[in-house]
Amino acid sequence: MKIEILTTGDELMSGLTRDGNFQWAGEMLTALGFDVAYHTTVGDDMITLKSVFNTAKNRADAVIVTGGLGPTPDDLTIEAVSNFLDVGVELNQPALDMMTERFRKIGRTVSETNMKQVYLPKGSTVLLNKWGTAPGFSYEVEDTVFFFLPGVPKEFRAMMAEYVLPELKKRNPQMKKSCMRLVKTFGLPESEVAQKLEGVEREGVKLGYRAHFREIHLRVSSFGDTTSEAQKLMDEFLDEISSKLGHHIFTTTGEMLEGVVCNMLKERNITLSTAESCTGGLLSHRITNIPGSSEYFLEGVISYSNEAKSKILGVPMALIDSYGAVSAQVVEVMAKGVKELAGSDIGIGISGIAGPGGGTPEKPVGTVYIGWYSETKGAISHKFHFHGTREEIKLVTVLNALDMIRQTLLNNV
Amino acid sequence: MKIEILTTGDELMSGLTRDGNFQWAGEMLTALGFDVAYHTTVGDDMITLKSVFNTAKNRADAVIVTGGLGPTPDDLTIEAVSNFLDVGVELNQPALDMMTERFRKIGRTVSETNMKQVYLPKGSTVLLNKWGTAPGFSYEVEDTVFFFLPGVPKEFRAMMAEYVLPELKKRNPQMKKSCMRLVKTFGLPESEVAQKLEGVEREGVKLGYRAHFREIHLRVSSFGDTTSEAQKLMDEFLDEISSKLGHHIFTTTGEMLEGVVCNMLKERNITLSTAESCTGGLLSHRITNIPGSSEYFLEGVISYSNEAKSKILGVPMALIDSYGAVSAQVVEVMAKGVKELAGSDIGIGISGIAGPGGGTPEKPVGTVYIGWYSETKGAISHKFHFHGTREEIKLVTVLNALDMIRQTLLNNV
Repeated sequence: MKIEILTTGDELMSGLTRDGNFQWAGEMLTALGFDVAYHTTVGDDMITLKSVFNTAKNRADAVIVTGGLGPTPDDLTIEAVSNFLDVGVELNQPALDMMTERFRKIGRTVSETNMKQVYLPKGSTVLLNKWGTAPGFSYEVEDTVFFFLPGVPKEFRAMMAEYVLPELKKRNPQMKKSCMRLVKTFGLPESEVAQKLEGVEREGVKLGYRAHFREIHLRVSSFGDTTSEAQKLMDEFLDEISSKLGHHIFTTTGEMLEGVVCNMLKERNITLSTAESCTGGLLSHRITNIPGSSEYFLEGVISYSNEAKSKILGVPMALIDSYGAVSAQVVEVMAKGVKELAGSDIGIGISGIAGPGGGTPEKPVGTVYIGWYSETKGAISHKFHFHGTREEIKLVTVLNALDMIRQTLLNNV
Repeated sequence: MKIEILTTGDELMSGLTRDGNFQWAGEMLTALGFDVAYHTTVGDDMITLKSVFNTAKNRADAVIVTGGLGPTPDDLTIEAVSNFLDVGVELNQPALDMMTERFRKIGRTVSETNMKQVYLPKGSTVLLNKWGTAPGFSYEVEDTVFFFLPGVPKEFRAMMAEYVLPELKKRNPQMKKSCMRLVKTFGLPESEVAQKLEGVEREGVKLGYRAHFREIHLRVSSFGDTTSEAQKLMDEFLDEISSKLGHHIFTTTGEMLEGVVCNMLKERNITLSTAESCTGGLLSHRITNIPGSSEYFLEGVISYSNEAKSKILGVPMALIDSYGAVSAQVVEVMAKGVKELAGSDIGIGISGIAGPGGGTPEKPVGTVYIGWYSETKGAISHKFHFHGTREEIKLVTVLNALDMIRQTLLNNV
């Protein structure tokens, strides 16, 4: 069964809006085992729409169309479908009732312009929209089924789950049950992850790689005659890749790295504070993105200047003079300083040269030290040489700092 | 002249890679006045590729194809083109010479697998790749010109500029000269920007809206018989929209809000420090993304706890007890405290409830205070009620803080 996804809208063609619906649907359908063979995008133009409906009908078994169901003049989908099929439109009473009720709740009535949204092509099946205003519909043309859905991402996703997926599965009775997981790794380039996983691929399991800055994400799908068979295959497969990638895997359930770190802090009842120089607050920003982080994240200091490092964190000026602000000695004392200032269990200190200026032959742009201090482990620091733009160096530094916290906690603080 | 953009690759179809090339090219070509009529994406499959080449030939005058020019077995573009056109391939000596030289520099030789990249369809015109390994090529089929370019974004963009744009312009001699500008606004919803700009549209100017979180970006293109005519039209148009949107416009040259603020600080030789609570370091992170920010950004404090607010910033506990940590009184003292700690000209204090927990009937989630302190202006603070997720509330708070700095500086500190 070949699927075509057809996204419409001038704002997509002009690059002013990103086609997130296609990316989301492509990932989901592919992971579920469907064959997404074609993706087409066109603007709001009647003749073009008719022509791509025809092309899609001739090459695909199921066509998912998004957009053009709104009330404005550039919303042409219903008219284009009706032209393409050479059928008229008729009032769909359930769609009108739902829209009337929705508007009533917010004190509005259905206007003349909205009425065009509930006149659907004759012979179509309405797909009621519980998440927004514009109803969708489906239509069978010869051997091809078309689904017309709104372009608003929230509504599109909900209606995909509610109407399209069950229908696609029904039309593919031979299709297996599936399980999906998002596994994330840090600290290995994609080629090395692929090399370590050589030979793991097996019948009934599908593996897709996605590089997400310095993280490598693995989209794993497993298939079986029953859900529990698919689940069993998934568990076995996750066991095997875990044994090959070890501590590089930080989640098998799709969480962000800071989420994993924050969960560890919370579970172990450990508090943290940070002293950042070159990362300028990005580490504390990422940590405080996690709800409830005020329970374990106590304080952050962005000690951009040497004076701040000395005055707030108590780094002796003599130490900075001897070793430089970017040094193992200084980040360890920064970590200890902020730990004591905040009264937390762990302190993290970061100092480096994010560039583009500020590099020297001994300490070129991308030189970064990350320090740790806790009573049980004492002072630890690591030196790094990163490459990239200023923002990339900040980001990779923060990922390494988060991973350093994770790894050190794994080894028991 | 109808243009089709055809992006290829299994990783695009499965949603594992975002189709950034299309979005970039769509925005650029549309802004230049070209008619990007179709966008198609397909996976690495010979039969599908041939069929979409044929569809594109029949409906477009120029087709830009990306991807599939690499050395691996799933790189099928050359073979698919050669099948589609029913022509053989032949060695392209300039492409081989360039690849040989490129490899020589990094101590490699051209391998058997790489050789397939320099055997191009007979009758094609090579597009030498100075930015990577895979050569591109163009081919005329009946009235349609095809351009085959690598999928690596950096190479794709460079080759679009070097080869494709000049050729498209040559084929459109009647096409006007153009000017492009990216205008960014803050503080108004899209509907209000559109309302204020009602009636400004005119012959020779194209205006596209893009909502970028709480900023509204305007992509403006102007067209004329000569570049200076287009430029004159642009200047007049920018004057007019500036008079309508006033201080809501923070740039007409595409800079980020923090870039505008940092330029103002630098030009006026003013130093800044920040005390953040609910934004957790995001403000200092955004400011320190700007190269050279250490010249005017002195220190940041993330005073998540009341203890930190009191101990580091000198906010009296009695003040917190009387008014609460989220109050005008506290952010003003935080701003003053960090200004004095850092010895900067301006201090900014932020306190609020980012949620999802922590809200009360009097101060629900989304309540945020932003405070300013400087010797010349004294203490200023504003209260906000934001909506959204935790991350959205952090982000909109930081945008408002940056804009508050910008506006206050505009009124002379």
